[in-house]
Amino acid sequence: MKDLIRRKRDRGALSREDIARWIRGVTDGSIPDYESAALLMAITIRGMDKDETVALTDSMLHSGRILGWNGIGRPTVDKHSTGGVGDKISIALAPWVSACGAAVPMIVGRGLGHTGGTRDKLEAIPGFRTDLTADEFAAQTRRVGVVIAGQSGDLAPADGKLYALRDVTATVESRPLIVASILSKKLAAGASGILFDVKCGGGAIMQTREEASALGQELVQTARELGRNARAIVTAMEEPLGLTIGNANETGEALAVLRGEGPPDVMALTRVLGSAMLVLCGVARERHEADARLDSALESGAAMQRAEAMIQAQGGDPRVTVNISILPRASHETKVTADRQGFVTAIDARALGMLLVAMGGGRERKEDSVDHAVGIRLVRKVGEPVIAGETLAVIEARRDAPDWAETARRAYSIGDQAPTPRPLVIEVQGR
Amino acid sequence: MKDLIRRKRDRGALSREDIARWIRGVTDGSIPDYESAALLMAITIRGMDKDETVALTDSMLHSGRILGWNGIGRPTVDKHSTGGVGDKISIALAPWVSACGAAVPMIVGRGLGHTGGTRDKLEAIPGFRTDLTADEFAAQTRRVGVVIAGQSGDLAPADGKLYALRDVTATVESRPLIVASILSKKLAAGASGILFDVKCGGGAIMQTREEASALGQELVQTARELGRNARAIVTAMEEPLGLTIGNANETGEALAVLRGEGPPDVMALTRVLGSAMLVLCGVARERHEADARLDSALESGAAMQRAEAMIQAQGGDPRVTVNISILPRASHETKVTADRQGFVTAIDARALGMLLVAMGGGRERKEDSVDHAVGIRLVRKVGEPVIAGETLAVIEARRDAPDWAETARRAYSIGDQAPTPRPLVIEVQGR
Repeated sequence: MKDLIRRKRDRGALSREDIARWIRGVTDGSIPDYESAALLMAITIRGMDKDETVALTDSMLHSGRILGWNGIGRPTVDKHSTGGVGDKISIALAPWVSACGAAVPMIVGRGLGHTGGTRDKLEAIPGFRTDLTADEFAAQTRRVGVVIAGQSGDLAPADGKLYALRDVTATVESRPLIVASILSKKLAAGASGILFDVKCGGGAIMQTREEASALGQELVQTARELGRNARAIVTAMEEPLGLTIGNANETGEALAVLRGEGPPDVMALTRVLGSAMLVLCGVARERHEADARLDSALESGAAMQRAEAMIQAQGGDPRVTVNISILPRASHETKVTADRQGFVTAIDARALGMLLVAMGGGRERKEDSVDHAVGIRLVRKVGEPVIAGETLAVIEARRDAPDWAETARRAYSIGDQAPTPRPLVIEVQGR
Repeated sequence: MKDLIRRKRDRGALSREDIARWIRGVTDGSIPDYESAALLMAITIRGMDKDETVALTDSMLHSGRILGWNGIGRPTVDKHSTGGVGDKISIALAPWVSACGAAVPMIVGRGLGHTGGTRDKLEAIPGFRTDLTADEFAAQTRRVGVVIAGQSGDLAPADGKLYALRDVTATVESRPLIVASILSKKLAAGASGILFDVKCGGGAIMQTREEASALGQELVQTARELGRNARAIVTAMEEPLGLTIGNANETGEALAVLRGEGPPDVMALTRVLGSAMLVLCGVARERHEADARLDSALESGAAMQRAEAMIQAQGGDPRVTVNISILPRASHETKVTADRQGFVTAIDARALGMLLVAMGGGRERKEDSVDHAVGIRLVRKVGEPVIAGETLAVIEARRDAPDWAETARRAYSIGDQAPTPRPLVIEVQGR
C-alpha cells in the first residue's frame, strides 16, 4: 500500500492490479482507513487517467453482487442525475419508461447539502420502503418492471465504505472518484443502458458547461469501456426544477407529471430523458417513435398505473396516485412577496436548497433525519412578470416563518427587462 | 477538520489556530487517523510556508512536557544529524563537548532502512539503557552533564503519533513535516543551542547540496523563530563515515575517538561539530578557543571520563571504555577482496547500509529487532590504492557469507586514477 500511495503522490499511474488489491482490502476491511485516506487525497490532487478510472470503477463494481437480467424479456435501462434542487424527475420517469416496454431497476441516493435525493422524496409516501435487499430489488424488477430503491449493502459495498471516508476527508470533489462512485452502483444494478443527466449551473456540483461536459464524457466513456450502453445529457440547474422544493411536495409534483399536469419544465425534461432512455435501450429506434410511445403511455394511464404498481410493491399507500393529500404537509404557510415590479430574472437554486435544509427538509450531515412535510412552493419562475406585493413563493413550514420568507425573497432577482430564455437542455452527448 | 483538509488540498495556508487544534486532537486521540492521513498527504503534496512550519513545530513541541535547564550553571547544547551510514559521531561528541563545559541533553532515534541510529549503537553496550523517563533524563543531565537517550513519551508525544502515521502513508518525505518532527523533539529536550549536521549525498535523505542546504536553513530559521540558537553544517555522505558499519563496532570506533585513535574522517567531523557546538552555546568565543578546549579535554582524558560517567549512569558496563572486547561481535569473518588493481573511487554507502539490514544489523520496519554483533569493517576507503586480491572490507556475520561479501565488493568502485579528494564539510550555515 505504501508504494502504491507513494506512486500516486509522485504523479505515477496505478496498475489495474494495484487498484484491485486496494479495493479488495477496502471491502474486506484489511486496509486501514488511514491508508485509504492518504491515497484518496493523492488521487484527488493528482487525478487519475482513463485506464485507472476504468479499473477503479471495475474493482468497485466487483466488490459485491452484480445483478443480471437474463430472461427478463425486455431491455433494461436506468438514469442517473448528478443532483440539483427540485429534481424529482426519476419518480415519474422510471414508471413512465417502464410502461413503454423497458425494465427500470433504479438505485437512488439521499439528499445531502443543498441537493435533494429521490430516496427521501419517495419515503414521504406513507409506508413506502426504499431499503430493499438485492433479492427484493431483483424480484420487483422482474415482476413489476420498475423499482426505485436505495443501494443495498450487497451492491458495490466498496463504494459505500469509500464514500463515507471521502465525506470526512475532503476528497469528495475528485472527478475520477465521482465517476467510479456513480458508475459502480449503477453498473451493479445491471441495466444494459444508462442515461446520465449531468446538471450544470449554480445549483449543481458542476458549475460550468465545460466541467459538466467533461464529467458526462467520462461517465459515458467509462461505462462503455465496461460494456454498457451509455449517453449523457447536460441540463440547466440555475433556477430550481418545477414549482416545488421539498420531499412530499416534490413527490406530489412528480405524480402530477404522470397525469400530464406537471409544470412545463418538469414535463419537458422528463420527456427528453424518457425519450433518450427508450432509444438508448432499443425499445424505440429513434426519438419520434420514443416520443409517440411516451405520449401513448401517458394518455392511456399506463404510466400512472405502473407508478401505482411500484408504490404498492414497495409497501407504499397507492391512493397517493389519485389523492396527494395523503402526503404529509406542514400547515404553516408564509408568503414570499415581491418588493418591486418587473420580471423574475433569476432564482438562486442553491440558496433555496440550503433554506430547505434550514427548515428541516434536507441534511447537513448524512446522519441527519429529514422532515418530509416541509417545503417551498414557487409561484413565479424565471421570465415571469411580477408586481410589488405579489406572491413569489410560499414557505410551508412547522411554524410561521417570516425569516425564511425573507431568505427566499432574497433568492429571487427581479429586473426591469424580461431575461433572454435559456435552454433547459444544454448538450446531448454520446449519440 | 474537513474545512482544514480542504483548505490545504486547495493550496491554502493553515492558521496557527487550525494547526494547534489539529495537533491537540492528534495528541488526545480525538481526531481519527484517517483525517490526519488525508491532511498529511495534502501537506506533503502542497507544502507549508514558513509560518505554518513554525506553528506546526510549536504545536508539536507543546503537545508534551518541555524540559528547562534553569540553574544548571552551564550552557546547554545539542546536535542532530539527519542520518547516514556509519554515523557514530554523537557517541563521542556528546561527552567530549560536555567535558569542555557544556551540558548535552541529547534525544536520539533508532535506525530505519539504510541509516543507522545512535540509540541502537549505544544499546550494544551491555546493560546500557536508552529508555529513560523525562525525569531520569533531566536528573542525569544535571548530575553528569550529558545524556543520550530515546524520546520519552512525555516529550513531543504528537511527533511520535504523527511519525507512525507518516511511516505507513508515504508522507515521510515532506520537508515541513521533517522539520517539525526533528525540531519538536529537540526543542522539547530544552537545549538552548542546537547544531544540525545535514547529511548530503547518496547515503543520505537529501541527495543534492541544494536540498540539504534548504533543509538546513529551514531547521535553523524555524528553531530561531521559536527562540533557540541554531546553526547547520552540511556534510558529505557519499562513502560511509569511518571504518565501521554496524552497532557494536560503531560504538567501539566512537570510543576510539575519545582516545584520539578514531579514523581520520570521524576524528575530523567530531572536532568540527564539537567546535561549532562550543561556539554556539558560548562556552568558547570563537573556533580556535573551542578547538583548544577540545584538544585539552581529549589529552587530559576528561572526555573519556565523561563518556564513562554517562555509560555508568545509564546502566552500561563502564569497562567498555578501556576494553571494547566486551561488546558483542559476530565471529564469522568473510573477506571482501578487490578484483583488480587501481584506486577506490567510490563506496556506495546506501548499498552497504542495506547490506547491514540484510545481515540483521538494521531495520526494514520499525518493529524489527536488531543484531548488535554483526557489521561491516572497511579496510580501504575512497582514494586509497589497492591491488587485485587485497582485502577491501570484512563482513562480520553469524555465518560465513560469500554472498554478502560479493554485495559489498560491488559497492566498491575501483578506477585507474586516484579520485579528486572531496571535502567532508560542504557548507557551514548560520554564522
